[in-house]
Amino acid sequence: MRIRNLYQKNDAKIIFLVADGLGGLPHPDFQNKTELEYAKTPNLDALVPFSVLGLTIPVDYGITPGSGPAHLSLFGYKPDEVEIGRGALEAYGIGYIMAEDEMAIRANFCTIDGGRVVTDRRAGRIETDEMKRIVGKLSRNILEIDGYKITFMPGKEHRFVIVLKGKGLSDSISDTDPQKEGLTLLPAKFLNPDAKRAADLVNKLVESILEVLKDEPRANGVLLRGYSLKPRVEGFTERTGMRALSLANYPMYKGITRILGMETPEAGETFADLLDYLKTRYKEYDFIYLHYKYTDKAGEDGDFLKKVKAIEELDAYIPEILSLKPDVLVVTGDHSTPALLKAHSWHPNPTLLKSVYMGFDGIERFTERNCRLGSIGTIYAYYLIPLAMASALKLKKWGA
Amino acid sequence: MRIRNLYQKNDAKIIFLVADGLGGLPHPDFQNKTELEYAKTPNLDALVPFSVLGLTIPVDYGITPGSGPAHLSLFGYKPDEVEIGRGALEAYGIGYIMAEDEMAIRANFCTIDGGRVVTDRRAGRIETDEMKRIVGKLSRNILEIDGYKITFMPGKEHRFVIVLKGKGLSDSISDTDPQKEGLTLLPAKFLNPDAKRAADLVNKLVESILEVLKDEPRANGVLLRGYSLKPRVEGFTERTGMRALSLANYPMYKGITRILGMETPEAGETFADLLDYLKTRYKEYDFIYLHYKYTDKAGEDGDFLKKVKAIEELDAYIPEILSLKPDVLVVTGDHSTPALLKAHSWHPNPTLLKSVYMGFDGIERFTERNCRLGSIGTIYAYYLIPLAMASALKLKKWGA
Repeated sequence: MRIRNLYQKNDAKIIFLVADGLGGLPHPDFQNKTELEYAKTPNLDALVPFSVLGLTIPVDYGITPGSGPAHLSLFGYKPDEVEIGRGALEAYGIGYIMAEDEMAIRANFCTIDGGRVVTDRRAGRIETDEMKRIVGKLSRNILEIDGYKITFMPGKEHRFVIVLKGKGLSDSISDTDPQKEGLTLLPAKFLNPDAKRAADLVNKLVESILEVLKDEPRANGVLLRGYSLKPRVEGFTERTGMRALSLANYPMYKGITRILGMETPEAGETFADLLDYLKTRYKEYDFIYLHYKYTDKAGEDGDFLKKVKAIEELDAYIPEILSLKPDVLVVTGDHSTPALLKAHSWHPNPTLLKSVYMGFDGIERFTERNCRLGSIGTIYAYYLIPLAMASALKLKKWGA
Repeated sequence: MRIRNLYQKNDAKIIFLVADGLGGLPHPDFQNKTELEYAKTPNLDALVPFSVLGLTIPVDYGITPGSGPAHLSLFGYKPDEVEIGRGALEAYGIGYIMAEDEMAIRANFCTIDGGRVVTDRRAGRIETDEMKRIVGKLSRNILEIDGYKITFMPGKEHRFVIVLKGKGLSDSISDTDPQKEGLTLLPAKFLNPDAKRAADLVNKLVESILEVLKDEPRANGVLLRGYSLKPRVEGFTERTGMRALSLANYPMYKGITRILGMETPEAGETFADLLDYLKTRYKEYDFIYLHYKYTDKAGEDGDFLKKVKAIEELDAYIPEILSLKPDVLVVTGDHSTPALLKAHSWHPNPTLLKSVYMGFDGIERFTERNCRLGSIGTIYAYYLIPLAMASALKLKKWGA
């Protein structure tokens, strides 16, 4: 079923509010409640009687996703359909749009000793400004290797991105990062014969970088991983027909939506900034992805009460979002991040969909346990896009 | 899994009662109830405590089906597996069984001016008798073109069906219907090179028809669309093992079941006629499809109370159906048609299955919201046939 063929344009707006890592688990220290159950969420609660609820599985039963696959599923892509390398995510995340003949690499500065043994994998956690200075030095000194153009781009702290440009590149090569301190820098090895040239190139690149860095006191080494050619993925607009705006504060999420071709501005540092931006551009789009990071951060910290607070803060933004009068509002997570686990998990995402054309379940609160009783049922997350589009009357009838 | 290989013959009877467009949505003008919730359905309600309930998705999440795909799914065919052209549906609907070397076309009489501009796409809505007279005239005057045999068959009002018979036909040709009044009749164009001969043939056919019609005051033109070769689809009996009787009042549904090879008599004009017919042939079949149209018609009209009444009238027939003592009774829809939307929709079908071998859910009424709590769950409609067959003990064990 190709959604694009059923698309019919109208003025309806879909807001897709994704609270990262929203779902949680009952916690023994907090009355055996989940973070959502423990939180006071009057504004979400007020929506529930007029919404349908459900649970969405990001990838598959028991599979814990990274943010990349979890978001792709949310945007309607089946998990096995697309693979986006980490290097590409980083490059797009900082605003770089890759060409067909390019390969992106995640790079970290590190500290090495005279025998190329890694003594600090994060180069003493150098600050962003210091990293930028050194990336500038690399940019000035290494413009190309064997005819391949080399671009260095700063990230945050000790992280940066390298893009190689030229014919016949391959990402089937091994990391140079030994993953542990006390081990020697690894050479890049080709993992299939076609990748020999790319591995040679990467090894020459490392030598050139080490030469430029040799007088740096802390950032005198480099670790490479996440080699990625330009991701091959159908754009979100090509796939759904909808003009899409992506509003996120963090590079990774911006990277994903840029790869999918969504309009992804640099809209500010806080969630409030995103909402301010949204008000100025709301009319131009059919679909708005709005990313809220803080639930996931607190969950990863294992800080139950901090996650509760993040949920309550999100709840306080709901009236502002509703003031835009979206025809369809979806509130969901990309994956769960229970404070009990201090990590992403496989538990399905609590999901709410509000639209006059979806009916309502007559349930009282938005919690994981209530969502399992909702009429959306427990579905794969990639079905949310067609459900949201149908609820916005953006899909016409299939067949006579 | 091939159901046919598991089939075991017994005397159990399955009645599959399909109330077209049964599912609805809560309506703000009617206490926020759905049509099923608002209706008084004492006979269905009496079944519910001894039945299992569920929701069935016709095609996929968010996809609104036409009646063709929705029915194919009900009969156990996956939606992408079969495509049946509209011309074939019309031909089979009026009782014509196509051969391998035939192509069916939906035809409408229309009114054109001297420059072949369409001035009335329905030829002044001529009456069925008048249409039959003109179809008779075409039949007498046009027997063949270039060696291809041409058959004209009356439908209703301005509609009729043309069947072409001969070698090398193709349905990859464009409509001659410009879709709007004030536009000129279009020539049929071939959409791939193999279809050139078929396009030429259709254009000659149009010229011949226009010549015959030239003195008609209103029906002096013809619009062609929905070209279809004989549908390639495995028969229902070949697939399931069951001998099947189809009882419907409307041509489209008869067309679908004839294409699937079900016994599809002309059983009368009303639902009561269908039940009378059923009593005379009940013992001969394993599976009986019983179609009730009026729920969909009222939903498409956006007439909530008319749909409620259609549901209540259906409810009144339930005792008569039960008097046949079916071993399995399924009550479901093909798709939803909420009065709120005045159209088919993507919402899953409320579904009831009564069999002593399925247990019961202890739910009180047959409504959309109760169905989501039932033990069938929310499933694709094409799983209903195996569930009904299992409940009739018609499927033996798979594997040792």
